[in-house]
Amino acid sequence: MKRVRFRDSAGNVRGGRWTVENGEELVTAAAGPYGRISFGDEKFAPDEVEILPPCEPTKIVCVGLNYADHAAEQDKEVPDRPLLFLKPPNTVTSHNKEVTLPANKARIDHEAELAVVIGERCKGASADEAMDYVSGFTCLNDLSNRDDQEVEQNWVRGKAFDDAAPIGPLVATPEHVPEDATIECRVNGEVKQQSSRDQFIFSVPELIEEITTYMTLEPGDVISTGTPAGVGPLADGDEVEVAIEGVGTLRNTVHIP
Amino acid sequence: MKRVRFRDSAGNVRGGRWTVENGEELVTAAAGPYGRISFGDEKFAPDEVEILPPCEPTKIVCVGLNYADHAAEQDKEVPDRPLLFLKPPNTVTSHNKEVTLPANKARIDHEAELAVVIGERCKGASADEAMDYVSGFTCLNDLSNRDDQEVEQNWVRGKAFDDAAPIGPLVATPEHVPEDATIECRVNGEVKQQSSRDQFIFSVPELIEEITTYMTLEPGDVISTGTPAGVGPLADGDEVEVAIEGVGTLRNTVHIP
Repeated sequence: MKRVRFRDSAGNVRGGRWTVENGEELVTAAAGPYGRISFGDEKFAPDEVEILPPCEPTKIVCVGLNYADHAAEQDKEVPDRPLLFLKPPNTVTSHNKEVTLPANKARIDHEAELAVVIGERCKGASADEAMDYVSGFTCLNDLSNRDDQEVEQNWVRGKAFDDAAPIGPLVATPEHVPEDATIECRVNGEVKQQSSRDQFIFSVPELIEEITTYMTLEPGDVISTGTPAGVGPLADGDEVEVAIEGVGTLRNTVHIP
Repeated sequence: MKRVRFRDSAGNVRGGRWTVENGEELVTAAAGPYGRISFGDEKFAPDEVEILPPCEPTKIVCVGLNYADHAAEQDKEVPDRPLLFLKPPNTVTSHNKEVTLPANKARIDHEAELAVVIGERCKGASADEAMDYVSGFTCLNDLSNRDDQEVEQNWVRGKAFDDAAPIGPLVATPEHVPEDATIECRVNGEVKQQSSRDQFIFSVPELIEEITTYMTLEPGDVISTGTPAGVGPLADGDEVEVAIEGVGTLRNTVHIP
């Protein structure tokens, strides 16, 4: 199943499914709140509606250096346990939105990532049971302000600025996403990053075990699993896409004031 | 005004004021939702009710090394701009609660801090106008797991574990809190940290200007302003208090599994 949240033309926030019928992508609204039948089963083209972030995280727990090739291009050692950092809710923005990046920075990079959406509250989950708490996968662009990241202890100015986490367009349940799903980033149509989930240093269950040793994860919380090699700077007006096999494509345009 | 959130014996979450009448501290319930008059103006002793966190932050933006004496005891330089880190909502716990700390760590420290509670959404606030966005001040204990903090790039295991941010018991509007308000930490009644707000390296308005250059602050979000010298380890069963002049005293007991 591929779940989506959207706002319809009347301004209502609605849930639904992202489906394909006769080769055409469609957003099909779920029955509305209070079982109002009139709300159910309407179909929209994805561009007719405002796609919202597919979940509402209280926190995004991000993983750094989870691909050997990216660690090498950043001149870093592969860590012996996951390198973690945080993106708070102000970073969240959605598919098709223009993202406004901090002004007067020399370099703000794209980082295409597979993001895990939590479906059920969990703490102290073992790797064996970790997938029981997962709702599914989505695309996340871990936008990174290198000017500040390189000079600060904690990556707050570098990673937690407004709009630093475009996410979506949908949550695909795990059976849609192969163990070797491709993860790709394109800028203005040109492929910049391309790798596969089977290149992860730490697997999704291992990440959930490590994170929930310390922190409770809530439904809607997100773990972003790190980016492969090929990160690079974005310029005003760029169109940036994160495409994940079995999920779909997250597309944003870049605005630098 | 001193505002408080609490749960009454019937389980209702309510807002009210922390007052003193004839020398006795009281929690006075505000009129309830929907203006139900029957809800208003009841008075409770603070220990009769469950004091809740006085706000519901989407993020806590913390400041490191904001007192020269603490920077010296940590063997660090005073930074030329605020050192920032994040505590997500899973860290929040309240007055009178037992806090459960991560197991098997050699050292988890108390850090008494003055916390700023945001009252109105703000981005790009200048220092001059910053206080217009502040609802008031409260006490925060920035519990810090040194074992992990000292070996990780971003202080996630070190600072963002569950229960790492006891906060409260109330929000005092700014006129209650003098510019040189004392900030004190006591462990089992013994004073461990004692300093004053006038020792800050970066003032509250300067912090708000710097943070909102990058991040939107939401109502209920918190800025924790750093801790003075005297931090030290907590042991199972300790009672730890953060007392701030003009605010009150946040009290927690420590459980280490």
